[in-house]
Amino acid sequence: MPPPTAALSVPSSSSPSLFPLSSFSSSNNPHVSSFCPAPTTLPKFSSLSKPKTPLRNLTPLSAVSIEKETLISERPHTFLRDADGGDDGSVRSRFQRMILEAQESVCSALEAVDGAGKFKEDAWTRPGGGGGISRVLQDGAVFEKAGVNISIVYGVMPPEAYRAAKAAADDQKPGPIPFFAAGISSVLHPKNPFAPTLHFNYRYFETDAPKDAPGAPRQWWFGGGTDLTPAYIFEEDVKHFHSIQKKACDKFDPSFYPRFKKWCDDYFYIKHRGERRGLGGIFFDDLNDYDQEMLLSFATECANSVVPAYIPIIEKRKDTPFNESQKAWQQLRRGRYVEFNLVYDRGTTFGLKTGGRIESILVSLPLSARWEYDHKPEEGSEEWKLLDACINPKEWI
Amino acid sequence: MPPPTAALSVPSSSSPSLFPLSSFSSSNNPHVSSFCPAPTTLPKFSSLSKPKTPLRNLTPLSAVSIEKETLISERPHTFLRDADGGDDGSVRSRFQRMILEAQESVCSALEAVDGAGKFKEDAWTRPGGGGGISRVLQDGAVFEKAGVNISIVYGVMPPEAYRAAKAAADDQKPGPIPFFAAGISSVLHPKNPFAPTLHFNYRYFETDAPKDAPGAPRQWWFGGGTDLTPAYIFEEDVKHFHSIQKKACDKFDPSFYPRFKKWCDDYFYIKHRGERRGLGGIFFDDLNDYDQEMLLSFATECANSVVPAYIPIIEKRKDTPFNESQKAWQQLRRGRYVEFNLVYDRGTTFGLKTGGRIESILVSLPLSARWEYDHKPEEGSEEWKLLDACINPKEWI
Repeated sequence: MPPPTAALSVPSSSSPSLFPLSSFSSSNNPHVSSFCPAPTTLPKFSSLSKPKTPLRNLTPLSAVSIEKETLISERPHTFLRDADGGDDGSVRSRFQRMILEAQESVCSALEAVDGAGKFKEDAWTRPGGGGGISRVLQDGAVFEKAGVNISIVYGVMPPEAYRAAKAAADDQKPGPIPFFAAGISSVLHPKNPFAPTLHFNYRYFETDAPKDAPGAPRQWWFGGGTDLTPAYIFEEDVKHFHSIQKKACDKFDPSFYPRFKKWCDDYFYIKHRGERRGLGGIFFDDLNDYDQEMLLSFATECANSVVPAYIPIIEKRKDTPFNESQKAWQQLRRGRYVEFNLVYDRGTTFGLKTGGRIESILVSLPLSARWEYDHKPEEGSEEWKLLDACINPKEWI
Repeated sequence: MPPPTAALSVPSSSSPSLFPLSSFSSSNNPHVSSFCPAPTTLPKFSSLSKPKTPLRNLTPLSAVSIEKETLISERPHTFLRDADGGDDGSVRSRFQRMILEAQESVCSALEAVDGAGKFKEDAWTRPGGGGGISRVLQDGAVFEKAGVNISIVYGVMPPEAYRAAKAAADDQKPGPIPFFAAGISSVLHPKNPFAPTLHFNYRYFETDAPKDAPGAPRQWWFGGGTDLTPAYIFEEDVKHFHSIQKKACDKFDPSFYPRFKKWCDDYFYIKHRGERRGLGGIFFDDLNDYDQEMLLSFATECANSVVPAYIPIIEKRKDTPFNESQKAWQQLRRGRYVEFNLVYDRGTTFGLKTGGRIESILVSLPLSARWEYDHKPEEGSEEWKLLDACINPKEWI
């Protein structure tokens, strides 16, 4: 009898929203039918090509090819291919360094505040380059489940996905387009119902220029966000959290916070409930209409803001006494978290459909969740106030 | 401040797989953008039209129109429109009677075995006909959550969905096609980790003939199934369960059990895990290539087999002593149930996307579920055996 190992073991993404997913449309065929090895040499990256229209909703997921992973016992110095120049000053290389450092600093801060739990690390590479590191702390003193993952992917998408290539003459059929994607993604679920869940995710995406369609440009963009999901509202906590997000945004552009705050409210919408998952934060995707260096600094600033935005709230709420019904309400809200992530989150649904490393993708789900039939909080109660804020998003600062 | 009521309140389906869903394709727009009242008179149903090709994957969900529901305090005698002849001998009318009786007998048997819990009933109608009854028993002595729903829907689908109409000349543009769908759907989650979860669902679907395309046929079909999802395998239980399914099938056609058993194994597949949700049973859809009276009797026989297939297993396992780790394993398998229902189940995803009555649709989710990072049962353990049977489906009889 064969051992009961699951058939799928091809990581393509870690946890929600790793990829710049608006470039891929959903498909009825959730299997990646073949895995073409991506080419081993890539043209040098140019930061000057910024086409106005990002790649939107063109590629069936079944056509995106990512190599199989190999679990490794020790993390390598880099997941970049040699042709990418290792630690040269490229955006690929600097973004990788940024997410590795962010993973390290966030995990250290979480272990410090937890006091008991330690992160378990799983690392993998892929034959042609790329790989990832999942770090999970489960059943700690403060955290029920905390996952902080980074991932580097070299993949190939069909030329149909690459709108710019369409400008080429019909008889000049372009070949498949190699792409590079790197990201950090994290979901932190504390035990105490008064301590909020946090999610953050920052990612960078680049295509190579299509070989057979000279003149068709490369594309790149940044995506990401940080958002807060409490079961109970402490206004001072939510104000603190949003203030830190605004401060990070304001350093770069005064339009960022209002725009990305609204984008976040719109994105984390559980349509079948008419509710948002939580109390928002910031979210952006397909961002390439600013200077590339500026956006790299902005993503770095956002990732560095996670600890000051979140840890003080956890310190304040981790030991608040609670009763069984407050715990049950937290569990019901965790059920909503599961609904959002499995039904709507583009990173999760993309990962599931392309055969990503399931344990890394679904580390975003809480350790436990609850669904009661037709549960309605009493009008005016603390639970009702949270639900109201999820249905009618507020300006917190 | 407006009260925090969710925006969506339009029931179109109760719990998983109410509709013959292969007739609808998924859409990127999960909102039903408008609700056209369906016509109030319907041509008399004919059982003679059996086109070879059922309606498959043609209609965007956003184009299917179903009226809003009104909660009512007392259940009506019938949900059928007057034009459908009330209690005449039509298939619509007899199928409605069958599912009402099945709901009654299953709920009575469940209350008897539970001993403590009672079903709570919610009923609704729609202005132009149709409606539903949700019955839920929550936190009983034996059942954590048990939902048994029936629903009657009069809706309208665009002519593009109706392949037969395409035979009409291009200048004879057919109008929207009214359809009728009726079903019973149920998920039963016991508390004891040695007592299995059961799901069953039987449904009947009919279109009217398109008014503006004379000669284009009506369509009808049956769908449904009954399947078992234990956390631990007791071979005698699984054999008993499958034997009852086979007995019901064999009364009608010796090919039914092997064919519908395999269909069930194929349908309840959690692709991203490479596992089935449970140990199967029977499943069929789009069934219209047999005599209609025979299929009505077959669906009735299947619905009547639920109690003898399931209740003896519950009687035997409801009081088996268990420990915390066995309960945690059940909770992990409940997590898989949630993954299947939210990601793959066509009834659930259809209901969520068309704005169905959320509480009826999601009553299929367990009261509680669990996700541990990278959980792997020890080789040879009872948990490993269950997982193995979910990965490699077995012949039980």
